[in-house]
Amino acid sequence: MTTAPHAAVTAAPVPAQSTYQTRVADYWNAEENPVNLELGQIDDLYHHHYGIGAADWTVLDEPDPGLRRERITAELHRLEHAQAELLAGHLGPLSPADRVFDAGCGRGGGSVVAHLRYGCHADGVTISAKQAEFANGQAHKRCIDAKVRYHHRNMLDTGFASGAYAASWNNESTMYVELDLLFAEHARLLRRGGRYVVITGCYNDTYGRASREVSLINAHYICDIHPRSAYFRAMARNRLVPVHVEDLTEAAIPYWELRQQADHLVTGIEDTFLTAYKNGSFQYLLIAADRI
Amino acid sequence: MTTAPHAAVTAAPVPAQSTYQTRVADYWNAEENPVNLELGQIDDLYHHHYGIGAADWTVLDEPDPGLRRERITAELHRLEHAQAELLAGHLGPLSPADRVFDAGCGRGGGSVVAHLRYGCHADGVTISAKQAEFANGQAHKRCIDAKVRYHHRNMLDTGFASGAYAASWNNESTMYVELDLLFAEHARLLRRGGRYVVITGCYNDTYGRASREVSLINAHYICDIHPRSAYFRAMARNRLVPVHVEDLTEAAIPYWELRQQADHLVTGIEDTFLTAYKNGSFQYLLIAADRI
Amino acid sequence: MTTAPHAAVTAAPVPAQSTYQTRVADYWNAEENPVNLELGQIDDLYHHHYGIGAADWTVLDEPDPGLRRERITAELHRLEHAQAELLAGHLGPLSPADRVFDAGCGRGGGSVVAHLRYGCHADGVTISAKQAEFANGQAHKRCIDAKVRYHHRNMLDTGFASGAYAASWNNESTMYVELDLLFAEHARLLRRGGRYVVITGCYNDTYGRASREVSLINAHYICDIHPRSAYFRAMARNRLVPVHVEDLTEAAIPYWELRQQADHLVTGIEDTFLTAYKNGSFQYLLIAADRI
Amino acid sequence: MTTAPHAAVTAAPVPAQSTYQTRVADYWNAEENPVNLELGQIDDLYHHHYGIGAADWTVLDEPDPGLRRERITAELHRLEHAQAELLAGHLGPLSPADRVFDAGCGRGGGSVVAHLRYGCHADGVTISAKQAEFANGQAHKRCIDAKVRYHHRNMLDTGFASGAYAASWNNESTMYVELDLLFAEHARLLRRGGRYVVITGCYNDTYGRASREVSLINAHYICDIHPRSAYFRAMARNRLVPVHVEDLTEAAIPYWELRQQADHLVTGIEDTFLTAYKNGSFQYLLIAADRI
Amino acid sequence: MTTAPHAAVTAAPVPAQSTYQTRVADYWNAEENPVNLELGQIDDLYHHHYGIGAADWTVLDEPDPGLRRERITAELHRLEHAQAELLAGHLGPLSPADRVFDAGCGRGGGSVVAHLRYGCHADGVTISAKQAEFANGQAHKRCIDAKVRYHHRNMLDTGFASGAYAASWNNESTMYVELDLLFAEHARLLRRGGRYVVITGCYNDTYGRASREVSLINAHYICDIHPRSAYFRAMARNRLVPVHVEDLTEAAIPYWELRQQADHLVTGIEDTFLTAYKNGSFQYLLIAADRI
Amino acid sequence: MTTAPHAAVTAAPVPAQSTYQTRVADYWNAEENPVNLELGQIDDLYHHHYGIGAADWTVLDEPDPGLRRERITAELHRLEHAQAELLAGHLGPLSPADRVFDAGCGRGGGSVVAHLRYGCHADGVTISAKQAEFANGQAHKRCIDAKVRYHHRNMLDTGFASGAYAASWNNESTMYVELDLLFAEHARLLRRGGRYVVITGCYNDTYGRASREVSLINAHYICDIHPRSAYFRAMARNRLVPVHVEDLTEAAIPYWELRQQADHLVTGIEDTFLTAYKNGSFQYLLIAADRI
Repeated sequence: MTTAPHAAVTAAPVPAQSTYQTRVADYWNAEENPVNLELGQIDDLYHHHYGIGAADWTVLDEPDPGLRRERITAELHRLEHAQAELLAGHLGPLSPADRVFDAGCGRGGGSVVAHLRYGCHADGVTISAKQAEFANGQAHKRCIDAKVRYHHRNMLDTGFASGAYAASWNNESTMYVELDLLFAEHARLLRRGGRYVVITGCYNDTYGRASREVSLINAHYICDIHPRSAYFRAMARNRLVPVHVEDLTEAAIPYWELRQQADHLVTGIEDTFLTAYKNGSFQYLLIAADRI
Repeated sequence: MTTAPHAAVTAAPVPAQSTYQTRVADYWNAEENPVNLELGQIDDLYHHHYGIGAADWTVLDEPDPGLRRERITAELHRLEHAQAELLAGHLGPLSPADRVFDAGCGRGGGSVVAHLRYGCHADGVTISAKQAEFANGQAHKRCIDAKVRYHHRNMLDTGFASGAYAASWNNESTMYVELDLLFAEHARLLRRGGRYVVITGCYNDTYGRASREVSLINAHYICDIHPRSAYFRAMARNRLVPVHVEDLTEAAIPYWELRQQADHLVTGIEDTFLTAYKNGSFQYLLIAADRI
Repeated sequence: MTTAPHAAVTAAPVPAQSTYQTRVADYWNAEENPVNLELGQIDDLYHHHYGIGAADWTVLDEPDPGLRRERITAELHRLEHAQAELLAGHLGPLSPADRVFDAGCGRGGGSVVAHLRYGCHADGVTISAKQAEFANGQAHKRCIDAKVRYHHRNMLDTGFASGAYAASWNNESTMYVELDLLFAEHARLLRRGGRYVVITGCYNDTYGRASREVSLINAHYICDIHPRSAYFRAMARNRLVPVHVEDLTEAAIPYWELRQQADHLVTGIEDTFLTAYKNGSFQYLLIAADRI
Repeated sequence: MTTAPHAAVTAAPVPAQSTYQTRVADYWNAEENPVNLELGQIDDLYHHHYGIGAADWTVLDEPDPGLRRERITAELHRLEHAQAELLAGHLGPLSPADRVFDAGCGRGGGSVVAHLRYGCHADGVTISAKQAEFANGQAHKRCIDAKVRYHHRNMLDTGFASGAYAASWNNESTMYVELDLLFAEHARLLRRGGRYVVITGCYNDTYGRASREVSLINAHYICDIHPRSAYFRAMARNRLVPVHVEDLTEAAIPYWELRQQADHLVTGIEDTFLTAYKNGSFQYLLIAADRI
Repeated sequence: MTTAPHAAVTAAPVPAQSTYQTRVADYWNAEENPVNLELGQIDDLYHHHYGIGAADWTVLDEPDPGLRRERITAELHRLEHAQAELLAGHLGPLSPADRVFDAGCGRGGGSVVAHLRYGCHADGVTISAKQAEFANGQAHKRCIDAKVRYHHRNMLDTGFASGAYAASWNNESTMYVELDLLFAEHARLLRRGGRYVVITGCYNDTYGRASREVSLINAHYICDIHPRSAYFRAMARNRLVPVHVEDLTEAAIPYWELRQQADHLVTGIEDTFLTAYKNGSFQYLLIAADRI
Repeated sequence: MTTAPHAAVTAAPVPAQSTYQTRVADYWNAEENPVNLELGQIDDLYHHHYGIGAADWTVLDEPDPGLRRERITAELHRLEHAQAELLAGHLGPLSPADRVFDAGCGRGGGSVVAHLRYGCHADGVTISAKQAEFANGQAHKRCIDAKVRYHHRNMLDTGFASGAYAASWNNESTMYVELDLLFAEHARLLRRGGRYVVITGCYNDTYGRASREVSLINAHYICDIHPRSAYFRAMARNRLVPVHVEDLTEAAIPYWELRQQADHLVTGIEDTFLTAYKNGSFQYLLIAADRI
């Protein structure tokens, strides 16, 4: 497996991209949303996903405007971190000798969380060269770049060694790809008995087809949210067997309601998310599955 | 088969709808876009689809505002009618004794076109009670309601007799449903050797996943556009074998460019369609297939 | 749908059985284990499944032998009832007008629990004529036989009406049947959006094939425990989409450890269960899925 | 990728053949039909397929016997060339840097046509060593052997590099092989978004099973004509998505009617082809598909 | 189930036929080959299949020409009857109360053989009205028409009752139909645990695709011989599980070699059969399978 | 292909085992049943499977106890050898240049039988290091270790070369593995047209699910007996096409009845086998299939 020297982006195989993939890469190369950057700066854990759990609503009552902003930012980060820890908790047990694969790693927070929890090796992959570079820089700064590395690659075709990984995950990155190709790659990379975890927004088949809100979210992020059924069908075809499935929709709502009120962080998609969650057309789902 | 008395809507089986289906029905029950109504009033052929073919751009040069508006309207209607005739031309040969099924019939224009061309019986189905009522009224007015009937039903579960149809089609209505369920119903209704025709917008798998423009169209119409590949996979599973496939994307552009300039008819989605067609992410496709 | 008059067994369709099915029916017609009968007598809720949750170990310290026996019995019943309530909790929300299907109903406890919680109609099905008769007697005694009925039928081929059920379940009865046939029947009976819940012992694919302990359990009950993967593959093929999956293995152990010490209730399979759970070859799993 | 030096046949991998394949190879090694050789000599474009389009029937009125023969030959060649150009037109756009794969290349005409049109590299594969040698000789004579090479290989297992081809095709050579194996190889060789084109005779599923005429054609060429449905099923399984399907049956008839009258060129199968086309049991079909 | 009054053909459902089916029906309505009629006249068992087993070659040495002809005819009939008995032997055990289905019954010999062996009810189906009429006449003559009836129906869509049959078979009639449709109908008609038997010529996948000889046989009979693999794939999809498979190719050769010498009986296809069997491209196969 | 030096176990790839596989390996590493060892010592052909054919019951009448024991042992060995020869007879024809693969070779008898019959190369694979070492020692002793080699590997993932084998088999070793993985490996290893043979105990789908006896056998051997249907489904998915299927159940009974009486050899499972065979729940089956 080719890996990156510290603070450098692996130049290796990024197979010929589709126009769509280029457009997604361009989006993330350009993305500098405060909700991602300001939160990450708190403790240098840059998450690219939403948060879960009960919110501390008192932060809104903070009279000092600067402090109020700071406390809201911290609270949202705390909720995002709780989500990352929930995911990481389903990866184990793992030992420091184990290797994990972070598919769609963004600015790298998830791999750091996994490494800090288990001491394991981590390979993060992102289609954005800028994200990979940023994340490698962070790993270098933390002096964990010997074990945690980020690669500018296509997560559907990583070029990594078969069976080399004890665990792998997608944290809100499956909506950019075809699930059969994605799960085939995870199944190839995971060793027998390895664990795969995904947290994702999916549309709810019992509601029907994708609602208007789901389509607006797709338009916002240039993504293509799958129905819940698609995950289980594609896992069944790729030797990934669920062992834990949890509907996190309720747990996700406080994060969005708080973020809705954070004028310095909103991206404009907050209302749409809340409507989608509340009208039953959209779900926030965790699936932990075993590679058999 | 239960059919409607003239100018009345079949009250019969509309199976329990999903929330999504209710929302789509509400949309079409409320819809009164000039682009659908004003065009239809010209000759009482109410189409609910786009047009194809070269446009007569001179209509834009018409100095008299009222006449200009009228000529633009007529030209767009001519292009829509050309599309309907193209579709109908692929249904045959059919005899007056044959029966055809118009899945997602809207205000009924397509069934009338087929009847006028072949003299055949037609059953149109729409999820909108208002559209069915309107269409039956039109058929009554034309005195063809003995042979052309519209039903307020779910096209996935029509309750019509198996093998009773010589031909069937979807004209821009497949993006509201799951293709496997739809094609299973067409395969059930068509006799052996029967013909199925679909004209649809689909997203282009060679571009990648759904583009931002495709998602905006989905949000606009509360629909869920399928990738091109999904049509051929679902047909292969449902004994529908293509015999003619034609990419109508180029042929669709003049219609949209003309409509873009028709201030009295635009719905606001025109630019998005043109961008989607031109950046390669979206296609306007005709498939004619045989039921084997 | 043919249903039973009160306190009588539906004589209707029990399709030609295989030798295997006859042998299973004979087993349950003859079965009179105290662990099923004595527990049920406490409150006339006859469960045919195991229990979950933390046990009150103080019951073992009870000095009076008769009381000790009574308290152990009550504690095991409490744990079994907790399992039934956990399952029932995943069926809803349901209204008194809704109908539920209890596949493999045994002596009928589960249907009563569902009825008491939601007021809904319930149809239980068992391959044992004696169980059906017993359960109908209980319903009569409770004066709920107008809404809760038990049928001596094959759960793979119930003859009940399509789409008539809002929810259905198997509580430790899937190991007697082929999952594809079972889930096809549930999918046929459930309305769109209906809920299916299963609690089952399954063997763990990450361990490998069925362990010796799993085979001993099979031999004990004349059943054929499926691997976990089989559930998800068969659901994917039958339009049942998981929304909640929970590994209850840990929660099941106290029940078995307590039962192991209940000399008046043991059936001899207790050690095998505990070994199987603890060596990782066997799991106690809950899956809640939606019919799409 | 191993390629041939000029005017030499690649000796490389021709995997162990079945008896059937040996018999097909023997047939083509021995074949010297005037309809293939005399037509090719006109302009050194040796086609091994039929022609399409309207024929110039005046050639039959030519009074001079030698000239009549010559004009008939030229007219048939013109029609065959039109077919080759139609196919080649669906491969593009392509640049001189692109590489194309000609599966079942015969005496090599198709690869030359593609090269002349696009300037691209071409690899033709044939099971006949003699055809490969002949075709390489022609390429050498044209001084295009640096870019156009022919290989004596099995088209189901070429040994060429994965993803290396921008386009590929079968021109009347699919009836010798199992379609799933063939399309798997095309899908492997084509880059994402690459184009596959096939022109083939297929039997028509709406007619029923293979007609007597289809079987006589099979016997004549030692081939095994597939039903139309088989193409779409196998493409659906191999990530090849049709974008253009055209029934060329009508367009093929003039060629056969003219050839029927060409005493110096007939092979004896002409009447059978015409009967098969006209009784609806046989179709001449073009499919252009994208590798997704 | 609608059945025929004695000596009359069931007029009931012969679903709309394809052109192919009409042509096959015409062939068999017109067929009067001595090899079928003269052999049948010996004992009124009209077989429409080939024979198996060692031949008594001394019949060729018979000096008297009339007697020689008679003895050859009798010997071929004996071999054909041996084949029918071999097939019938795999149907059982059956009781007189059981019902069997003879798919493609020809002039009816097989159903009579099964009835004589087991006393069971038999329903034969043929696409030829003339064959059905002839066979019913034979049953009447034998006074078994209360239990043995022939129907002019499509074996893919018999309209008979589901699960009503204890056994069913095809004796050299599968090459006229699509196997998935055929086996679906057998699976529907057979009760659980019922037995299906087929004797058929199939082409040998290890040889490759259909050989020239196989295509000539197809052309002779207007049939479409399947590869061996197709039988097992279609059975696997239709709950038919083989329990006995026997390659009868060697056992079939004496019949063909004797028939080759029977100038009064040859149909002209004899050499082709022998070549096909001997070059490995064609097999004569028996499969007995259970309906699960 | 990496092969073993004489009398040594290939140390090469035994991929990470599941707990189940470790437990099976431990079982066979520890196994020293007289029925395997004493029989093998007779002629150094160590079989690990059951016998077939009529038994010589006179061995039981032998008055001398030592001789009686010896004769029983010899008779059981004769029956086991007959089974091995039956299997080996279906592998051919093979030449000394051919290579065969013995999947689950135990102490090596089958490979020796094949080698002695055909002179071919043989590679045996076992998950038990001790069995591989023992078998290589035997080959060395016979001086056939240049051609017959045993490997301590996983038969699902041998690491051997693709297409290198003319024949392969499992003799009572399929019940330890997932059939799809197994047949995929055989299909990979066999050349086109190669032969695969399996003799196995399977449970009978017409009986129903696995009987109590089948589960007891599973518990005894730590195996997981498949239903008969599973073999044909998995073969259909892996290009293995049956050409001979034979129910050996009847032929297996004498062996078990004799062994039942052999006090010095019984393992305790004899009664269970006989009950299972006789109640119809279990079958002893041979399948010979071709790799297409």
